[in-house]
Amino acid sequence: MFASISQIPLPENHHEFIPKGTQQILVPEPFTMKKGGLLPEFTIGYETWGKLNKDKSNVILLFTGLSPNAHAASNEKDSSKGWWEPMLGSGKSIDTDKYYVICINSLGSCFGSTGPASVNPETNKAWRLDFPELSIEDIASTAYLALQKLGIQHVNTVIGASMGGMTALAYSLLFPSSLDRLIVISTAANSLPFSIAIRSLQREMICKDLDWMDGYYPFDRETLCGMRMARKLGMASYRSAKEWEQRFGRKRVAAEKRQERNPFTSEFEIESYLEYNANKFTGHFDANSYLYLSRAIDWFDAHEYSKNNTLEDAFSESQLKQALVIGVETDILFPVHQQEAIANALKSNGIDVKYHGLPCVQGHDAFLVDYGRFCPTVGEFLQ
Amino acid sequence: MFASISQIPLPENHHEFIPKGTQQILVPEPFTMKKGGLLPEFTIGYETWGKLNKDKSNVILLFTGLSPNAHAASNEKDSSKGWWEPMLGSGKSIDTDKYYVICINSLGSCFGSTGPASVNPETNKAWRLDFPELSIEDIASTAYLALQKLGIQHVNTVIGASMGGMTALAYSLLFPSSLDRLIVISTAANSLPFSIAIRSLQREMICKDLDWMDGYYPFDRETLCGMRMARKLGMASYRSAKEWEQRFGRKRVAAEKRQERNPFTSEFEIESYLEYNANKFTGHFDANSYLYLSRAIDWFDAHEYSKNNTLEDAFSESQLKQALVIGVETDILFPVHQQEAIANALKSNGIDVKYHGLPCVQGHDAFLVDYGRFCPTVGEFLQ
Repeated sequence: MFASISQIPLPENHHEFIPKGTQQILVPEPFTMKKGGLLPEFTIGYETWGKLNKDKSNVILLFTGLSPNAHAASNEKDSSKGWWEPMLGSGKSIDTDKYYVICINSLGSCFGSTGPASVNPETNKAWRLDFPELSIEDIASTAYLALQKLGIQHVNTVIGASMGGMTALAYSLLFPSSLDRLIVISTAANSLPFSIAIRSLQREMICKDLDWMDGYYPFDRETLCGMRMARKLGMASYRSAKEWEQRFGRKRVAAEKRQERNPFTSEFEIESYLEYNANKFTGHFDANSYLYLSRAIDWFDAHEYSKNNTLEDAFSESQLKQALVIGVETDILFPVHQQEAIANALKSNGIDVKYHGLPCVQGHDAFLVDYGRFCPTVGEFLQ
Repeated sequence: MFASISQIPLPENHHEFIPKGTQQILVPEPFTMKKGGLLPEFTIGYETWGKLNKDKSNVILLFTGLSPNAHAASNEKDSSKGWWEPMLGSGKSIDTDKYYVICINSLGSCFGSTGPASVNPETNKAWRLDFPELSIEDIASTAYLALQKLGIQHVNTVIGASMGGMTALAYSLLFPSSLDRLIVISTAANSLPFSIAIRSLQREMICKDLDWMDGYYPFDRETLCGMRMARKLGMASYRSAKEWEQRFGRKRVAAEKRQERNPFTSEFEIESYLEYNANKFTGHFDANSYLYLSRAIDWFDAHEYSKNNTLEDAFSESQLKQALVIGVETDILFPVHQQEAIANALKSNGIDVKYHGLPCVQGHDAFLVDYGRFCPTVGEFLQ
């Protein structure tokens, strides 16, 4: 039932992306994607925490944002800290003494799930841009199928933030009878044109980079300049002007400490911070995966599930018992009115909804930083 | 006293940048720049409207943002529409029946003033990156010297928006006795780290473009990809998410109408809008000029004129009689609290200040679009 990493064909050098605790499950059946493309089979990477109870009623399914892997927190297989370490674990807000948590690496990503960097079994070459057009719904559906393979038919709570929140919404729209509760954080029913503009420009930066080689860059290339710049723009949209004002102000980097020597881009601490984060990111994320996932975010629109183009109608089939919707006032990528709209749509379908518009200063990324606010909000809901 | 265009040495193909109505005045004396560099001489491009009265008391000095030229409105020499056409002219808010208006092309720009694309008279080659480090104060000082050359010692009102607002502030700080009134719009006493991050990334896009050739690109090259992307990021920071939501929503461009064929960047109308604006801009602005001016905005800090690092103290020498400070609530590049800070600093020095935080939806660029709000606000002040 479980395929080991060694059974999954991977491009040379590519396995290094996958965290050591990530398991992979092969679903050896053809999968037709929302936009019409076909995967002859697919693999989903995932990690788990806690124990599945006898009646399988304690499953939490966690979807990630665009860039994280499935290693949300330390576990038995991998003791290194995960991207949501303070949130997830024994006695924490997502309490692994109580819940069996499964974090899914999104289809299209490069951390153990099938994506543009995986080998197409029909050609024995990496998919690259021949990978079929990817949608958020495909991420939700392949996670659902992987869970079936793992013997899990029903989920207590689906959780997702950012792109993961869209995936969680898609999951609840596609499989309304397979989950009881939903937690969506800093996400939206669809992307606004400002967010599309930012992501489109990030994709253009990658595609205009000659080293991208029209998608056929060597997988062992350490860093693409386009990816570095895309990450910098990402940082500018993930954080808030207010946080940076408090944190960096107009502080300068000492000339001898500058990582980048360009006289036009290396003087202020904020520039050094962006440079540091860009360097940390690139070389650790497949550029084509980034393009596919980024575009999937732009395409997602929960209104497609409505007959009258309202969010209220889109969720009319929902069987959710409870939902928690969290937004952050300083988020410019998924502004707080978008989370309010989700909460209102669920409420108008009679669902018990808790909504929080948090006053965190860290913008879209607050769920990864402001644990003082996020942990109790999520913890109280799950208790 | 007036140098004609033909007297000013210009790089081949470069004169095409200069609007046909722009006059140029040569100041044939060495100018030491704030950061220590030296110009052996310099030229300032400018346009005028209206007539200078006998006691020379009706002069309005207009500074521009980063990218506009001195052709703010149609005039006798050039009947084409200017970048502030609805604001400036006979009977308009800046009434040229009453005022003699001089619009200055900033030092460092490429529309008739000395900048990186001009010829260094000592080498007979274009300055390019050998152009000395440029500051906002240099733009203000060279404008002041050009005005002296034109026989104008005192200015009734200095007006500037965006970077032009910084130049207007610098002018009033450097030459406090040479102006009576100040109008600053959507500007700041210094740049916040979010704005620095955006501009730094724009500069990086240009510098990482191989076609920039380390600043030695041919002047007749039609377009630099880095400049195109920098302009797109500029548009995302100049406008507001709210405006784009109302204007574009999630509308798609018909496949056959797409200007760009990249499947990752060409589907939504917002992407097409950015592409259109980027193409309109590039090839019409010198890339090195852009880099110098953009960095000058990051460097400017009115607090340098204070002994105790307060804006109030910075303006303590001010002899302004009146000031009008305008901000826009949806501006993310120069947020409205920055204009409030300017207004408060001037007020606390006993200056009669009118402050308006306008509810325009167009963000930083509102002064170029929302004339319904801006024209009466400026007009009432000048009457």
